[in-house]
Amino acid sequence: MAAVSEPAVTAQAGVVITGGAGFLGSRLARQLLATGTISIGGEPARAISRLTLVDQAQVPGDLAADERVSVVSGGLGSVFGSGPGGRDLGILDGAELIFHLAAAVSAECEADFDLGMRANVHATESLLESCRALGTGPVVAFASSIAVFGGSAEHPLPAVIEDSTLPNPQSSYGAQKVICEQLLADYTRKGFVRGRAMRLMTVSVRPGRPNGAATGFLSGIIREPLAGQRAICPVEPDVPVALASPAKAIAALLGAGTSSDEAWGGRSAVNMPALSVTVADLVAGLERAAGPATTALIDWVPDALTSRLMASWPARFESERAAGLGLTPDPDIDSIIAMHIEETGWRQ
Amino acid sequence: MAAVSEPAVTAQAGVVITGGAGFLGSRLARQLLATGTISIGGEPARAISRLTLVDQAQVPGDLAADERVSVVSGGLGSVFGSGPGGRDLGILDGAELIFHLAAAVSAECEADFDLGMRANVHATESLLESCRALGTGPVVAFASSIAVFGGSAEHPLPAVIEDSTLPNPQSSYGAQKVICEQLLADYTRKGFVRGRAMRLMTVSVRPGRPNGAATGFLSGIIREPLAGQRAICPVEPDVPVALASPAKAIAALLGAGTSSDEAWGGRSAVNMPALSVTVADLVAGLERAAGPATTALIDWVPDALTSRLMASWPARFESERAAGLGLTPDPDIDSIIAMHIEETGWRQ
Repeated sequence: MAAVSEPAVTAQAGVVITGGAGFLGSRLARQLLATGTISIGGEPARAISRLTLVDQAQVPGDLAADERVSVVSGGLGSVFGSGPGGRDLGILDGAELIFHLAAAVSAECEADFDLGMRANVHATESLLESCRALGTGPVVAFASSIAVFGGSAEHPLPAVIEDSTLPNPQSSYGAQKVICEQLLADYTRKGFVRGRAMRLMTVSVRPGRPNGAATGFLSGIIREPLAGQRAICPVEPDVPVALASPAKAIAALLGAGTSSDEAWGGRSAVNMPALSVTVADLVAGLERAAGPATTALIDWVPDALTSRLMASWPARFESERAAGLGLTPDPDIDSIIAMHIEETGWRQ
Repeated sequence: MAAVSEPAVTAQAGVVITGGAGFLGSRLARQLLATGTISIGGEPARAISRLTLVDQAQVPGDLAADERVSVVSGGLGSVFGSGPGGRDLGILDGAELIFHLAAAVSAECEADFDLGMRANVHATESLLESCRALGTGPVVAFASSIAVFGGSAEHPLPAVIEDSTLPNPQSSYGAQKVICEQLLADYTRKGFVRGRAMRLMTVSVRPGRPNGAATGFLSGIIREPLAGQRAICPVEPDVPVALASPAKAIAALLGAGTSSDEAWGGRSAVNMPALSVTVADLVAGLERAAGPATTALIDWVPDALTSRLMASWPARFESERAAGLGLTPDPDIDSIIAMHIEETGWRQ
């Protein structure tokens, strides 16, 4: 692990991950280090000489121990930005590809509006200003979210979400993601960066502990029973949902970072592909993999708020641009569960 | 004219116009003062006790002389905002309706990216923070623009623009308007304001001097010949355009400010109605009103850049929500020209 104050190795390709200590960020980092090379924005693959992980949280030890890894501890607003109040610490020197994953999550943004504006909107603007100050037009792969979509009285959600569907966010998190998409698109149009906004799906099975998100049960009702613990399913079995495995989310981010401008095809945001299933399908898959004793650990306790929320969320996608990049949805719920079982080493 | 430092008359309804010295702002102010009453957000009409005009430019003398008018001179970023770096001068004390018209225009934003971000995005956020600090949830009628729409390779512009059409801005001005719409919508969802984003059309006939905007000729080819001056038309006669008279633009802003929440119908932006004509229709109308000697003053000098720009602009709208508010497009080009002739006192 190199200290942040060391001079950057500007002669070689560098990659940065904001939110590099998080679930997706650390997983992306491990995959990049294992592969060792990357094709930045469609260019011929090169060795990753330096991988900078920026996060407020502590970076996992295995990543910090890799000699190619630099760790920058701090919030984005305090380490990026050339505008008034911002400090540019030179973290991006030599960076050609920035995966921008750091964000306050939806529940946090609903509870603390100012936190969301600061951690999502202002921090992203600071990051983009630092990218612009480089003068090299780096590729910025931004983790947006399908939370940009939502149904409302004046614009009911269409049955199938396409790349051209109007974002109509019903949360501060979703609104902030749309704002960042627009900032990124205009910074791209101006030639300051080469921006790619990829809207990530609800990820299942997310490892670790419940994170309090409304969609958290879509991981919990698989993860907890497999760990021998009870889990609450707060919606009816027939509720349709759109999902992607962690592996597919990482593939989508890599697709955003490694595609040529031509293949990426434009400045507007891309919806990643989703597997559309019902909650009953999810549980049936769990039963096929782990038997009825496992699914018996699910407590069906429909909750009005969660049911209403899930009904307002998109459940079907036609992701034309993502398909053009070669991205595919998970084939079925069984493969998603099998991946989780393999990673956690679960045995019946 | 009351000085800004006088205590606000909080017992009575107050209205604020940012950009109150501009073409639309001063026109809106005159109309409000002439009517003398307003129904704020659908409430019963009340007398306008105080009309605050905020602008960097000088407010016209007739407005400044009205005893109901307070003038605040300065940029929005310097007079609003409770966040870091912002100062809240109490300008909004007692304000129940804010028309937010102040903006850097499209050509300025293209020439100076930082100016556009500051004058449009950051200033709007400062204004919204000041509104939020009031704690009263004032109505904010925001002048957005059809510049949010644009065609691109991945999302060609549909033949007819609806309220649900994806904004896909092709200019910094357009991107900044989308960002402000999203900010306003989320401040509204949180209950900080009652926001109404109205997307204004290209206005014709705009009085005064050419303003350098790409669409400026849509006023110039009527205004200049009527004033006995030559005017260049930089596109072919068959180019389709969407227009609205100044009177219809003011009606749209008033519709946004005076509708009840129910009539307004949602948090997403509303496209104002447009008259769809060709440039040839415009010139034919001018000839009907003022004769062939007047239209002979138009020099047809098609320009590749303007032609390309105009081809990428929306020319047809189906404005369902605006129609629901009782807003209508101008009936024909003759009425638009007749209004301009009446206002300028032109005589053949």
